[in-house]
Parts: sequence; structure tokens; C-alpha cells
Amino acid sequence: MKNYVLRICCGDQKGLLHKITGAIYRRDLNVTENSEFVDRANGMFFVRTAFTGDVDLYEIENELRETIPNINLLDLHEQTPRRLLIFATKEPHCLGDLLLRHASGELSARILGVVANHSDLRELTERFRIPFHHVPAEDLDREQHEAEILKVVRSYSPDYLVLAKYMRVLTKAFVERFENRILNIHHSFLPAFIGRNPYQQAYDRGVKIIGATAHFVNDQLDEGPIITQSILPVSHSQDALELARSGRDVERVVLARALKLILEDRVIVHGRRTIVFG
Amino acid sequence: MKNYVLRICCGDQKGLLHKITGAIYRRDLNVTENSEFVDRANGMFFVRTAFTGDVDLYEIENELRETIPNINLLDLHEQTPRRLLIFATKEPHCLGDLLLRHASGELSARILGVVANHSDLRELTERFRIPFHHVPAEDLDREQHEAEILKVVRSYSPDYLVLAKYMRVLTKAFVERFENRILNIHHSFLPAFIGRNPYQQAYDRGVKIIGATAHFVNDQLDEGPIITQSILPVSHSQDALELARSGRDVERVVLARALKLILEDRVIVHGRRTIVFG
Amino acid sequence: MKNYVLRICCGDQKGLLHKITGAIYRRDLNVTENSEFVDRANGMFFVRTAFTGDVDLYEIENELRETIPNINLLDLHEQTPRRLLIFATKEPHCLGDLLLRHASGELSARILGVVANHSDLRELTERFRIPFHHVPAEDLDREQHEAEILKVVRSYSPDYLVLAKYMRVLTKAFVERFENRILNIHHSFLPAFIGRNPYQQAYDRGVKIIGATAHFVNDQLDEGPIITQSILPVSHSQDALELARSGRDVERVVLARALKLILEDRVIVHGRRTIVFG
Amino acid sequence: MKNYVLRICCGDQKGLLHKITGAIYRRDLNVTENSEFVDRANGMFFVRTAFTGDVDLYEIENELRETIPNINLLDLHEQTPRRLLIFATKEPHCLGDLLLRHASGELSARILGVVANHSDLRELTERFRIPFHHVPAEDLDREQHEAEILKVVRSYSPDYLVLAKYMRVLTKAFVERFENRILNIHHSFLPAFIGRNPYQQAYDRGVKIIGATAHFVNDQLDEGPIITQSILPVSHSQDALELARSGRDVERVVLARALKLILEDRVIVHGRRTIVFG
Repeated sequence: MKNYVLRICCGDQKGLLHKITGAIYRRDLNVTENSEFVDRANGMFFVRTAFTGDVDLYEIENELRETIPNINLLDLHEQTPRRLLIFATKEPHCLGDLLLRHASGELSARILGVVANHSDLRELTERFRIPFHHVPAEDLDREQHEAEILKVVRSYSPDYLVLAKYMRVLTKAFVERFENRILNIHHSFLPAFIGRNPYQQAYDRGVKIIGATAHFVNDQLDEGPIITQSILPVSHSQDALELARSGRDVERVVLARALKLILEDRVIVHGRRTIVFG
Repeated sequence: MKNYVLRICCGDQKGLLHKITGAIYRRDLNVTENSEFVDRANGMFFVRTAFTGDVDLYEIENELRETIPNINLLDLHEQTPRRLLIFATKEPHCLGDLLLRHASGELSARILGVVANHSDLRELTERFRIPFHHVPAEDLDREQHEAEILKVVRSYSPDYLVLAKYMRVLTKAFVERFENRILNIHHSFLPAFIGRNPYQQAYDRGVKIIGATAHFVNDQLDEGPIITQSILPVSHSQDALELARSGRDVERVVLARALKLILEDRVIVHGRRTIVFG
Repeated sequence: MKNYVLRICCGDQKGLLHKITGAIYRRDLNVTENSEFVDRANGMFFVRTAFTGDVDLYEIENELRETIPNINLLDLHEQTPRRLLIFATKEPHCLGDLLLRHASGELSARILGVVANHSDLRELTERFRIPFHHVPAEDLDREQHEAEILKVVRSYSPDYLVLAKYMRVLTKAFVERFENRILNIHHSFLPAFIGRNPYQQAYDRGVKIIGATAHFVNDQLDEGPIITQSILPVSHSQDALELARSGRDVERVVLARALKLILEDRVIVHGRRTIVFG
Repeated sequence: MKNYVLRICCGDQKGLLHKITGAIYRRDLNVTENSEFVDRANGMFFVRTAFTGDVDLYEIENELRETIPNINLLDLHEQTPRRLLIFATKEPHCLGDLLLRHASGELSARILGVVANHSDLRELTERFRIPFHHVPAEDLDREQHEAEILKVVRSYSPDYLVLAKYMRVLTKAFVERFENRILNIHHSFLPAFIGRNPYQQAYDRGVKIIGATAHFVNDQLDEGPIITQSILPVSHSQDALELARSGRDVERVVLARALKLILEDRVIVHGRRTIVFG
């Protein structure tokens, strides 16, 4: 028996759920989880259905395409471990956290390798017997560097790129190749403190709460669709460095939580927003 | 056009959602929100479906009863403002909060009156032009007092009784009359600190977080199905009185949140647990 | 026996706490609470000392001014209930919450009156026997309207102005009259969503957490020193209106919490930041 | 220049802070952080003072003992990295988290080794070049097993023992050797769900929030003084296994936070409670 996930986004209309569940029921499959959202303001319908059994996916997909008009997204696949490539720079906490979860079998995915623009994290990565690729950016312009990065990416053909505190901005061209497949952790409660050094910005503004945001990367810096956020109360006694230190615990948890949602196909991107069937 | 809510709890089996959505679709009704939960460990299925249109509910109900075996619960009704009777003792914060929400039209319900075993809250209640019933417990045993209370309750025939810091324990006989229709706010993070003076207990134990719990009342003290909980970090510098003061803000929010969930028919009780379609 | 609070902000140097506690100890007063913060990056020292006894404040203040160089702030007074004037517009939840707390004796302050640019909240205010002043803004420019407002303010000589969802921007001239004496609640997690309709902005951006911020008002919109913030997780299923509805519970709690901190003299403003001895 | 921390707990009386700061000021030392708490209900005074300079600690300690009557605790020492021994069983998440923090230099302590009653965590531990001691409990009674454990402990003379999901109960005799020096993480929001399988208990009770508690171990199971707690909202859809999975993220963060507080000498135990100068 296999596990499948179906995700649909389409214009709202009567009977959608009846048609979808019918396509599953008639094939004697067993729905294990069903979540839907009707966005009445925009007339949109979103559904995620997990089911078990053994079936020709192509056939179901055809039936759904025939009976449901205006399908924007139709993703139907068997649930198998995804292939991940991690990007990092110098900070070990998010990478380390992912490596630990991977090693303990907690992640339903395979970490294929780590790409970094500095070599600091080689030792940590190799402790977990994961290949480490140092792609230095010195003396290269952004396009040249990304070309080098792309070679590594291609050698792995990953499903998702996970930016685990990768501190370089990706070009529009790069991002477009991996639409909704690049997950980033930003160390602020977006949209507050976009850009560089958000903890210093947070200190200067005197906020009483800091946060972290996991989002898909699109072509505008820190503007991609948000998947999950979390926060931590702070006080006047913490300077920017201490905010950063405290913030790390939030960052790693938020990144791991978003990755789990993605790996379970619980996220549907719609414009600048996400529907998250948590 | 009317708004309806359907809630079903039954043994899990294939095709349930297809049958339910079919009964709605064939009558040309429009599903606005659908939430379900398959409890695989116990083989149970729970669903809440909100839909709009104009229909003979009796007919749908009949169809569902015929096509769905082993129905534990089937509740289908038009959404209209519920009738509430509030119980209180001396503390004004939860009662005041409900009166404010009621006065500003935020509550999709009608507060019919307030019953209290002390008279302290009369002024507050009457400020909002709500009838106040002082039913003193002095010189009465528990059964006699409840008989007096029952007279008031009967005169209103409320849908729900809301214990807004009502500090008396209800008898089994009383509770059974209003199964899953009495909402209580307990001033601790249940099951920690059951019973009297939970803030003193919390202080003595030296906890770093306090909480509040909204639950349906059943015949065992503080053991009823939990609907919602919330917490507040505290420190060594707060004595039991200050914990109580801080706790009030959590209590009123938790009670209001649980009441909203109930009024929108988002709660299904199953044994000692609740399914909350939030 | 009286309760006093001393707050000092000055350049950091050795022996400050020894000198301050000496001035109290030699007069046989009893320190009940002492909190300090050394801001090493900026070489500043902040202290709040609460003590009891009976003493000539003028004498202590003189001694402190003589022995401590570079004092930025020295505030020493007996703790007595503060005088508050509430500003509001149409939304009842923050005003109602303050009125309730006031009526139940929870607020260590006196609410003198309510000023509003609309008349919607008259009934609510007068239910609690508090004077309501409707100062309409129609046909008046900002300065003229504020002149009318000022008349009411002057008639009360309040210690603090509390903007309980007062939806008009105050002029620089007005704000400067009441430096660090105007408390505002902003319905977003500042600095995210400055300005109008933050809940719509939050919806459009697709955030997963909303918040509220209590801050002193300075001459730049939503830029004043933050006192306290709190948040609430939200989901894709909530539209801007529902975010606003959920946000109200956070707003009222955050405002009440900030007001309590102010009334207990636990806040020291330093530039754009606050030191909060919570 | 060295960093020192002084902690005192004694009966409350006038002038304590003046005397303590005097002892520091007269030796031309520089206070960098001072926190105190007056427990008025019990007439106790607690203080933590961090200062820098170069001084004969013995001399200060003598002066303080002479001038301050009724001292319960006086701890004064130079801040140097503490020596830790980690105890574990099979679960890798807390141990892995500590090893990562240690490897990245985030922990101001030295992890000397890991002791476990199973061998599962050997590989993880040795990846970080930390000695792993497997002390199996099979065929041994509790005292015999602890005698074996003690041999390892003695060979390291650690300052603190950190139970990172060590699933065996320690004897009273063992615990008394290391009073307030054994840190444990309990996977529930104590005092809820004491004892075995708290996540199953939480599921059965239908709570809407789970938590974790870091506490010093004393001779009663799960009854030691609480240092820090944190929580996570959960829903009806999570079974006991999923609660456990979600709970791990809370557990590791809570344990790390408590350990940091201990390593910075911010915790004073007083009876069943802790004063935490966070």
C-alpha cells in the first residue's frame, strides 16, 4: 500500500469536494487526511488530500482535469523521501540542526550535500558523512559564482534547496529556475527588518520581541511567500549580539518546521501568500 | 440565504466525505467551510461542514442517517444566535469581558442573564442592562441551592451555561442535565493544579509558566473535555496574589476564545477529548 | 509609611549603586525592590528603586544630585494614583477594557474622562459614570481640532494621555507638550506595518503571526519608544477583518500591560528605546 | 581583568545592598550586572552581582560574612568554563543539541563525556570527538548500576551532571551527592503528567498545549526546583507519537536555556523554588 498526496488550487464552485472525493472513493482508495480552504473573497478553492492504496495516478489526474474547470495547480504524487541540497555560509546552528534531524531519521528526506561560500562548516558537515562543497565567491561576480553553484546543484538534481543561513542574495535568474523550491530562513519577523543585520535593526528600534521567518525565495529580497514564523520575547538588557544569539534558537526551529510542512506537501503558494494545511 | 452547520462523528469508512458532500451538492447548496479529522488509532471520523442556501434540514438528515452507518453524533442546524446564561461569583473580569463583547456585538449570541451566588457583580451586570439573579447559598445545602439556580435557568431555557469564575462545584445531577452545554474556565493549566487555589499551588511549586483552561463540565471536578488553553510566563518575583492578577488576563481571553468556538459549532466532544475545528 | 519610587539614568561609573543605596539606608528607609541596568555599549546606568518609609524627598534628591555626576534623569516621588485621560474614536474594546479594570479597582490610577472624535463610545463610557467629551473633527483643521482637545485636557491636568485606539495622528506641537506622557496602542507588531490599516497589510503580506505594540508617542508616526508587544499566531483562513477581530484581544492586553508598567514607574525612556524593569 | 559572580541568599534587612556594593566599590571593582529580589512574604533577600577587576575573593567573602547576618548561601567565584558530564539513554535530540552548541563554542562550558545506559548514541557522540561511556543496566540492580555510573563520574569530577533524556530514575543516595548539580529535562509541563510517558498522558487527557520543564533533580521524582519551562500548542489531530515528536523541539530548547542560566550562575535554589536572574 502506498501513500499519496493530492493538492489542487482552482476557482471555487459547487461540488468540488464531492468530485475529488468521488475520484478517490470509486477507486477504493482510503482518504487519511483532507484539508480544504475556500477563499471566498477571491473565489478560490484549495485542497490537500492524503490517501492510501495502489492506483494509476495518471488516470485520477485525467479524471480530475476533465471534471474540474480552471485548475491552477494540480499536484498528485506518491510520497517518497525528497532530495535536499543545503546552502550555508558560516553559521552552524541551522545546518547543524538539519544534519542532526537527518542523522536521527527524523527528516523524511535525504540531504544530498551542503554547498557553502565559506569553508567553515566543512568539519561539521563531514562529521555527518555528508559531502561538502566549498564554492568561494572571491574574485567572482554574482553570475559567475552562481554558475559554479549551479554545477553542484545540477550534479544532485535536488527537489528543494534549503538556505540554512546562506548569506548571499540569489539572482532573479537563479531563483526562477527553482520557483517555490528554495526555502529560506530570515532572521527577523518579516516584514520588519528586511535586509542586512536585522538584529542590529531590532536593537536600534528597541523592540520587545524578535522573530524569524521561513519563506520561499522569489526575486525580491525577503519578499517571498511566508510559510511559518515564530518569535521570542527580549528585553532592554540584550544588545544586538545577544539578540542574535537568542534568535538562533528560533531560527532553527522555524526552519525545521517549515521544511517539515514542505516535505509533507502541506504548503500551497498562491500569489504572495501561502495556504498551509498544518 | 441561510447559514447551516453540520457536524458528524461516526466510525471511519471509505467514502464518507463523498457521501456527505454529495448530500449537499445535489441540493445545490454551497459549502463554505469543511473540516474533517480521521482518528486512525480509534477508527473514528469527524467532520464539520458549513454551507449556505435554503433547504429542508430534515431531508438531508434522513439521507445522511440512511447512507452513513454507525453515526455517534449528527448535528445539523441553521446558525442563529445562541442563548447564554452566565454564572459568576465575585470576580468581575470574565463576566465584564463577556458583557463588553456582548454590548459591542462581537458575540454571536444573546446573554439572557447573570446568576451569581453573591451580589457583588450586580452593579457591573446592570450597567449593561442585563438581568442579575442573586441566588445566595447560605443556609442551603448543595441540592437546595441548585434547585434555586435551576428555577432561574428554566425561566430562560438557555443553550449554554457559561461559568465565568463561578466558584461552586456543581452536582453530578445538575451537570447531567446540561451535558456538553456547561462551559467553565479553570484558572490553571489543567491537569496541573486541579481544585482549590491553583495560583497558590503554582507559587508553592515554583512554576515558571501559569495558564488557564476552558473546558466542558462533566461530573468530575476539573476533568471535563478541554476546549482551549493558554499560558503566561511568570517569574520568582510574583507571589500567589500577583500570579492571580496576571492570570486574569489569560482567563478572560481563554474563556472568550472557547465560547467563540462553541458558538460557531467548531467543537465536537469525543470521550474525554475534543475535536476543535479552529 | 509611604511608598516611594526613584528612577535615575546617568553615565555609568563605579559606586553608583553604593551611593544610591547609601542615601536610602542612612535615612533608615527600606528598599523593597531594586532593579538596575548597565548599558555597557553606551556607558549608561539605569536604576529603579522602590522603598518605603517617611522622608523628605527634596533632601534625598539633593544628596543624589551632589554625589552623582552626569544625571540625565532623576525622578523621585511618592507613589500615588495617577490621573488618566483616555482618548478613543469608535472601537470599544480597549476603552471598555480600561473602564472595566478601573471599575474593579485593578488600575492604580483614576480615569478622569474620555475624549473622542466620534460619539459612538458615549454610552459605554457613561455606563461606568465617567465623563465623555465628544470633540468632533468635522470642518476643523488638525490644529483647530487639537485646540478643542487641549481645552478638555487642560480642564483635567492629567498625568498621562492614553490613546485607546484613537485613530487620529497628533501634531508635533501637541506631542511635545506631553513628552513621554502619551501612551498609544498600535495594532501591529511594529515596525512592521506602520500606518493605516495594518491588518489589511498583514493579510496582503501573508504573515503567520500578527501583533500589537504599546509605545510612547513622539513626533514621528508609530516611531515612538516601544514599551511592550505581544503576538498571536494566525492562518491563511483569516481575512483582514478576522485578523482585526483576533487582534483586538492582543491590543487590549498589550495596552493594559504597558499602562500598568507606566503606572508603577517601571519604564525609563532613553532615546528611541525603553528600559522596562518588569 | 577577571569576571566574578557573587550570589547571596540571606534574611532580609535594611542596608544589605549598600553593604554588598560597598565591599565591591571600596576595592575599585566594577559592577557589570546586579539583580536582586526581596521576598517580602518570607523575609528573604537574594542577590546576584557580576563584577570585573582583580581581587582576593577570600577577603571579600570574609567581609561579607562579617557584615551580613544570617547568610544561607554565599557563593563567590571567578567565572571559568564549567565541566559537564552528559547522561543520556536512546533519544538523540537533546544530546545532539548540546554537542552542536559545544562544538560551535556557544556553550561556556566543557563537555567532558557522555554516559548512557544504552549504546545507541555512541556514534553521534563520537562524531564530535567526545568520549562515550556505555554503562548497561542489564542484570544489575539500581545500586549496582549507579556504582558503575559513579566510577565514570568520579573519573571526570564534573561541576554539573546534565540528564539529556536519561530515562532512569536516580536513587536518593546518588542525588544527594550532587545537590543542585543535576539538571534534568522532563518532557511535560510539570507538575502536569509526572512520571512515565507524559505525551501519552497528555494525549489521553486531550490537552491543547504541551510543554517541557528543566529542573534540578532532588530525591522525589519530577519534584525538584523548576528552572525554566516552555510550551507548544497542539491539536486533536496529533496522537501521542506526534506530540512526542513536536515536543522534542521544546525539550531541547528548554534544556539549553536552563543550562545557560546555570552556567552563568543566574539560578539560586530556595526550598522547592528557584530565583532566576534571567
